Amino acid sequence: MTKATGAAANTAANPVDMADLELPLLRGIHGPADLRKLAIDELPLLAKEIRNAICHQVSKTGGHLAPNLGVVELSIALHYVFDFATDRLLFDVGHQCYPHKLLTGRLDMLGKLRTSSGMSGFPEPNESPYDLFSVGHAGTAISTAVGMARADQLTGETHRRAVALIGDASIVNGLAMEGLNNAGTLQRQFLVVLNDNGMSIAKPQGALAQYFDRVRVNAVYDDLKKRAHEVLQRIPGGSALEEVYHRMGEVAKAALSHNHMFEQFGLLCLGPIDGHDIPTLIDMLNEIKDIDRPVLLHVKTVKGKGFAFTEGDATTFHSPKPFTVEGCRVELKKTGRSFTTAYADAMVDLMQRDEKIFAVTAAMPDGTGLSKVLPLFPQRSLDTGICESHAMAMCAGLAKVGFKPFFAVYSTFSQRALDQIFQEVSLQGLAVRVCMDRAGFVGGDGAVHHGFMDIAMFRQFPQAALLAACDEPTLRAGLEFMRQYDEGASFIRYPRDNVAEKPLQADCPPFVLGKANLMIPARGSKPDVAILAYGMPVYAAASAVDQLAVQGYDVALYDARFAKPVDGELIRQLIEAGTPILTVEDHFVTGGFGAAVLEHCADHRLDTRNIWRLGMAEKWIRQDGRAKQLAEAGFDAAGIARKVREIIETGTHQPAADVDAVRSDSR
Amino acid sequence: MTKATGAAANTAANPVDMADLELPLLRGIHGPADLRKLAIDELPLLAKEIRNAICHQVSKTGGHLAPNLGVVELSIALHYVFDFATDRLLFDVGHQCYPHKLLTGRLDMLGKLRTSSGMSGFPEPNESPYDLFSVGHAGTAISTAVGMARADQLTGETHRRAVALIGDASIVNGLAMEGLNNAGTLQRQFLVVLNDNGMSIAKPQGALAQYFDRVRVNAVYDDLKKRAHEVLQRIPGGSALEEVYHRMGEVAKAALSHNHMFEQFGLLCLGPIDGHDIPTLIDMLNEIKDIDRPVLLHVKTVKGKGFAFTEGDATTFHSPKPFTVEGCRVELKKTGRSFTTAYADAMVDLMQRDEKIFAVTAAMPDGTGLSKVLPLFPQRSLDTGICESHAMAMCAGLAKVGFKPFFAVYSTFSQRALDQIFQEVSLQGLAVRVCMDRAGFVGGDGAVHHGFMDIAMFRQFPQAALLAACDEPTLRAGLEFMRQYDEGASFIRYPRDNVAEKPLQADCPPFVLGKANLMIPARGSKPDVAILAYGMPVYAAASAVDQLAVQGYDVALYDARFAKPVDGELIRQLIEAGTPILTVEDHFVTGGFGAAVLEHCADHRLDTRNIWRLGMAEKWIRQDGRAKQLAEAGFDAAGIARKVREIIETGTHQPAADVDAVRSDSR
Repeated sequence: MTKATGAAANTAANPVDMADLELPLLRGIHGPADLRKLAIDELPLLAKEIRNAICHQVSKTGGHLAPNLGVVELSIALHYVFDFATDRLLFDVGHQCYPHKLLTGRLDMLGKLRTSSGMSGFPEPNESPYDLFSVGHAGTAISTAVGMARADQLTGETHRRAVALIGDASIVNGLAMEGLNNAGTLQRQFLVVLNDNGMSIAKPQGALAQYFDRVRVNAVYDDLKKRAHEVLQRIPGGSALEEVYHRMGEVAKAALSHNHMFEQFGLLCLGPIDGHDIPTLIDMLNEIKDIDRPVLLHVKTVKGKGFAFTEGDATTFHSPKPFTVEGCRVELKKTGRSFTTAYADAMVDLMQRDEKIFAVTAAMPDGTGLSKVLPLFPQRSLDTGICESHAMAMCAGLAKVGFKPFFAVYSTFSQRALDQIFQEVSLQGLAVRVCMDRAGFVGGDGAVHHGFMDIAMFRQFPQAALLAACDEPTLRAGLEFMRQYDEGASFIRYPRDNVAEKPLQADCPPFVLGKANLMIPARGSKPDVAILAYGMPVYAAASAVDQLAVQGYDVALYDARFAKPVDGELIRQLIEAGTPILTVEDHFVTGGFGAAVLEHCADHRLDTRNIWRLGMAEKWIRQDGRAKQLAEAGFDAAGIARKVREIIETGTHQPAADVDAVRSDSR
Repeated sequence: MTKATGAAANTAANPVDMADLELPLLRGIHGPADLRKLAIDELPLLAKEIRNAICHQVSKTGGHLAPNLGVVELSIALHYVFDFATDRLLFDVGHQCYPHKLLTGRLDMLGKLRTSSGMSGFPEPNESPYDLFSVGHAGTAISTAVGMARADQLTGETHRRAVALIGDASIVNGLAMEGLNNAGTLQRQFLVVLNDNGMSIAKPQGALAQYFDRVRVNAVYDDLKKRAHEVLQRIPGGSALEEVYHRMGEVAKAALSHNHMFEQFGLLCLGPIDGHDIPTLIDMLNEIKDIDRPVLLHVKTVKGKGFAFTEGDATTFHSPKPFTVEGCRVELKKTGRSFTTAYADAMVDLMQRDEKIFAVTAAMPDGTGLSKVLPLFPQRSLDTGICESHAMAMCAGLAKVGFKPFFAVYSTFSQRALDQIFQEVSLQGLAVRVCMDRAGFVGGDGAVHHGFMDIAMFRQFPQAALLAACDEPTLRAGLEFMRQYDEGASFIRYPRDNVAEKPLQADCPPFVLGKANLMIPARGSKPDVAILAYGMPVYAAASAVDQLAVQGYDVALYDARFAKPVDGELIRQLIEAGTPILTVEDHFVTGGFGAAVLEHCADHRLDTRNIWRLGMAEKWIRQDGRAKQLAEAGFDAAGIARKVREIIETGTHQPAADVDAVRSDSR
């Protein structure tokens, strides 16, 4: 076995080609038991191998990079000390799980990272018993760990230790703080590992980020015993902890934190300690793993650790597209113009024209495109950090004073602000604008990030307007509509995809509340089918119409534009003319756009037997390329064409097959 | 003008009859300007009058009592020092707004407390420009205040001060902490008043509650200057605050808090100070009102202050039913057996039979009935405090280890856990049971608390079962079904109402997934209309059926029982027989139970033109008696009978009128 070359060797090198990749240690690890057979001085080399394997793979397929490079030593130390076959390891967010996955025997799956037959980029119980929860949204790990810890106590399985791994950007999320507050009441072992890299995703926001900055630089200690006594007096149950103190080893004693804010939550706080120093991490974890009180271990790590280009630009390499490294030159694969970029440019234009617009993101300036907006309009834009609930309520405050807040948020994360949309926005009749990127399938991020619920969630709010964009002109026109719409909240959705280089329509007419837009007229006086597509599926439907035309079918295509209100006049005309309607949406069929069409018809006593719906069945679709996911769900061009032929060929009284469209990968 | 008799006179007296109520000062207050004309030594008498007026009214009509009694002096002091005609006052939760309402000229509306023509029990912008947001859900005030403060900065209206009033139970809610974290970054005046009564609603939970206990008892200070220097060094921007310190008066200097946890959020912390000492409150607010930094003023109050019975049992008198006071004897009006009580008893039974059941509430042990369960099963039940998100994620952790968590929560507060139901529960396929009290109209609490969204929110979750109970036997049978259902999450809803003394059906058959239950069969072979009622409306529908029978109509009534899955076989039979179907639900029509019926029909190509839906239109209905609200919305017995006659008389091709059923009170 090769001798370790030390942690320093990991720094500032470039990843090597797969052909040159030597993974002598990693290839021998089929589970944590194999890890524990290694000597501690072999572990830095293992860390290096893990970094090389991950970086090599991500450079080919994209994926989360910098977060994983930052926790390699920490993951090794955790698996070296704990036995997560019985102990509980909960990841917060979860995009930092790659080293953990490699240590639990999933090197073989790495080559198909983020595809349905390979390794998910997030913890995934279907892959391994070492992954307890599929996660991707922030702030939840402490709470689920508290639940498991309480349950293990009840069943008497108190030998199972609980560990939650959470980053500094996540721990200030409200849910995480709620979790800490309740964790502090546990009368048993419970370890929160705070992975503090000072910039989880983007620069962390809020006053607590400044607090962490101070803690990081003030980690110089003296007079251990006096301080320990002070510390233990300060926290609840402190006198009981005096005993704990005497049982602790020197490493832990030395790291007892003075005046750490999370002490107030009832946790014994240790650190910050160096998260890349494996022997110290192992000593520390060994000394504290059996403390029968809630403990927070503050670990300082470097996001992107190991390569100069990832350490130097951890934000870009947080979750990069495929890239190449040649010498000092790192090049990200060009992937065309995304909706995100189009949104950013549209927002810059809008904000130049309208000084009442205020742009908000919750820790996703790059993901939403607002990184372009923030420096241009520092007074009228804000990154709140990972707190969608706060961001939404703050938007309501801005709207109350007459501003036009535009909150850019992933569809899936908008779920975290539902109650604020209810109370702070809709109940007050305030016009907050919600711009939802990543609507529908998100590709490699998988089920934890798909946006399939926003129509169903927001459709019942009085006076709400629900819009979707299918390309850059409709995105711009939709945003312009929202700028002017002040009757209530408005919501626009668009996918994680590129905008069409050549839009279907040369001239995009303005959005008019509740009006669809004819994209492809019927050739004859009465089409065989009229497709009402909502959002991005307009383009797949257009391809389907072309294919069907070759086969002799006459299909009209409308861009529905609004899921609320739907275009009642168009629907009535089509139904009265006997034209079958196919609704298409990249959203759960249940409660979605097609459902809105059905409800409208029922209210107006229109026959719905000529309406078919295509969308997402009630299933979870795992990670894969977006195109594959669309095909699997049956609403790509081929699926739409197939459905249209089925409608035409089988007439009006067959059971719709759409609810069975997705055949696999359900959980 | 009567001379003040001092704060002591307010204590431990009983409320007097209205005839004896002398309100010489209060009757002269038509707005805060009148308040500011009073001398400070008159204010304790005003406080006494406010207490008497509120207690008298609540004793007659019910309402929030103890929270309002606790903030009388604080409300007076705030209005005495600030001018909320321009300054911004944001209430958190808002049930402590009565004194504020009386000080802003709403004594005349108090007599019709919690009715549509009187005073809302929560802040209500439609009532007064002094109420900025309609609120009722916790944790949001700091965030909306931050939004307004930022907006005022942008428009240059920096003379408008921002004040958020929040209780100790709310401030540990995750959203509040997110708000504090972002408030800490403000570079302007911003005041958070922490109303710490040590038991907001119920006994506060979590480690931070213990922290507050310690702060309360440790409020003894010495060596002011040394401490101030320490404090100012500790918080961000501290050096700039040295200057602030020199500008502060002696009262504020003396109250500078040593090591208050919210300092870490970037706030200058003061207190705790006595929240019933008006002169000190006024001095303090005057000294700090212009500090151009975020400040937290920790105020210690006594919940229920002023009367022996409310101070002695602030939980019972948090939001009591009408009551009588005679001498030392206080008697709450008897109001029959509620669904809440029935739920509590059912849970006790279930937990005795099944040791895997774990009961959870988020700060609502009395509101949900779990106060009966907690002492009986201390190991298998938990009150998490006001953190629905955490509670739901913790339930997922419990379920993961094999427990059967039952989370008792108001329908409206379940909105706060949607994202955890998505990620932690549904995506994992875990069987968390959600028991939703206060579904539909809640009566006097009004729009901030109605439960009209739960079906729409939860219906698209794969494998979810959605149930409703209409009386005690169905509640018990539904809970038993949920105990056994482990395919996914399950949700049961029931109203803020009493259970029927005599259930419609003597024997309640067990719940079978997706099966409705025939309650009143047709008299002939084919009824004129079949009603499918979901939940509580079953009883109103039964009355309607009786009325209609007298008029010669033959109507069958089904208790739908499930909104997911709906009873497809029954629906098919009815439609194929040509029987018109009327769905009735106390939920938004949009996305609700009737919508589920429509979607089922569309999937199976069944004609929907014979289906009518009755439920809540897309409007907000303000506070009033539940019966009045039901009548106004048109789904009480009379409304249902009217609808049935309309269906029969006008045939199948009239537009449904239900979407216009609610004619007023929209916002």
